[in-house]
Amino acid sequence: MYDIAIIGGGPAGVSAALNAKILNKSFVWLGSRVTSKKVERAELIKNYPGLPDITGAQLSWALSNHAQSMGVYIEECVVTGVYETNGFFTLLAGEKTYEAKTVVLCLGVEAAKPLEGEEEFLGRGVSYCATCDGGLYRGKRIAVVCTDKAFEHEIEYLCSLAAHCTVFPMYRNYDIKAANAEIILKAPLKYVGDVKVREVVYKGGSVSADGVFILKSAVSPSTLVHGLKTDGGHICVDRACSANISGIFAAGDCTGRPYQYVKAVGEGNVAVHSAVEYLAASEKK
Amino acid sequence: MYDIAIIGGGPAGVSAALNAKILNKSFVWLGSRVTSKKVERAELIKNYPGLPDITGAQLSWALSNHAQSMGVYIEECVVTGVYETNGFFTLLAGEKTYEAKTVVLCLGVEAAKPLEGEEEFLGRGVSYCATCDGGLYRGKRIAVVCTDKAFEHEIEYLCSLAAHCTVFPMYRNYDIKAANAEIILKAPLKYVGDVKVREVVYKGGSVSADGVFILKSAVSPSTLVHGLKTDGGHICVDRACSANISGIFAAGDCTGRPYQYVKAVGEGNVAVHSAVEYLAASEKK
Repeated sequence: MYDIAIIGGGPAGVSAALNAKILNKSFVWLGSRVTSKKVERAELIKNYPGLPDITGAQLSWALSNHAQSMGVYIEECVVTGVYETNGFFTLLAGEKTYEAKTVVLCLGVEAAKPLEGEEEFLGRGVSYCATCDGGLYRGKRIAVVCTDKAFEHEIEYLCSLAAHCTVFPMYRNYDIKAANAEIILKAPLKYVGDVKVREVVYKGGSVSADGVFILKSAVSPSTLVHGLKTDGGHICVDRACSANISGIFAAGDCTGRPYQYVKAVGEGNVAVHSAVEYLAASEKK
Repeated sequence: MYDIAIIGGGPAGVSAALNAKILNKSFVWLGSRVTSKKVERAELIKNYPGLPDITGAQLSWALSNHAQSMGVYIEECVVTGVYETNGFFTLLAGEKTYEAKTVVLCLGVEAAKPLEGEEEFLGRGVSYCATCDGGLYRGKRIAVVCTDKAFEHEIEYLCSLAAHCTVFPMYRNYDIKAANAEIILKAPLKYVGDVKVREVVYKGGSVSADGVFILKSAVSPSTLVHGLKTDGGHICVDRACSANISGIFAAGDCTGRPYQYVKAVGEGNVAVHSAVEYLAASEKK
């Protein structure tokens, strides 16, 4: 049981992890990678105080380096669910689970809003986890919606199980090595079905499927944590970065504008300080 | 008339100034110096993301250097009053005044709470400004409470005017060159009087005075801005760093714990973004 689970490898996540380490808490840091793609792609950042005129790649390096210099490492995975039980939280990441007393969400803002039907059919034919649920679709028809080239090996794994696989690669330079893969270069619009998901609708057509895998680096906050209060896709937090669920905190772009690196690192700091206060108060009860 | 007046030279102020510059607003940055004494004295800062294991002096240099590299300079002064008139603000700093549509308060937390009687007798014998009010006490008895060696020349100026001057140096290594100065090495406890201030009470005694000068690098938020909502000395702000008075924003330690550099720079960024939004909305009216 960890004191703190931090989800997300962007600037807010780095700052949260550094502070969890400094404040001497047991913690796990989960995410798809250290610092986000968005940071790496930023051309020139002029307002990260103390580091004038740095590129996104340089900031990304500086943050990763800082974490490494303190022995702080991210466990690469995609957390797809956070469940509260008996005052603590269980996090689902592929086939692994983690338990923590508090959770700090640093999800960024890229976590696309779920499409129509996505949350409705989650667990009823819609899955975020190829390794968890792939086996259920042996010899069946599946569809895979993939937002990141990093997950191509999961597409290939799914294709190796399914009889037929319709793939929606939502990124550039796809290279999917699977004979039974049918590529559709259009964005899915919604998922429809009855008791289970039945088809993926895209502009100009639809494709039937027994199961739909949505492979993305982060799920939307409200999908990730049942009952989490959001507003326009942003997690509602107070000045202490506390969300509406006791023990859950959030930092960075996922809490709203301005989408700024320095705001994100500031909130990562605040969120972990608040988590530590929460832990101290819980122990006194 | 500036778009934004930023008060305070600590990390929050630096971040606010950088963002005001980048967002292309007309602004003035007022404070006692770039970065605070508190930063300069910090031994080792481990959680300023991107700058691992830096000393306070190094962070202070990095922030000042960043500001200078963008042509952003502080005007050294002590702002002692912010007054709202006709939807804009007038700032009083010694004998100078500044006008701005919005104000970003980055006052830090060192701004000591006013002593008993300080606010009551402000303008009735109590003054924050030697150059403004010194002339009123030619040939009279004054007391000077000084929190920073940087203001010693003001003590000497006041001594040159007054018949007798009781000095409370609240810092180390004082060196006051004035024959009519009587030094008391005790902290003042309160200011008492009737229609005007009459004496300074300290532990074990009191001293009478026609005027009392309080020389400090920042006045308390509620003294600075009449009607500003505070809680335990901290300025009450919302997630956008907006204070209870429209057009006034605050960032950094003055908004409350955690007192952390990275929280301060994050809020400096947020406060200026909010000020810019406020300006845009005001123009549409």
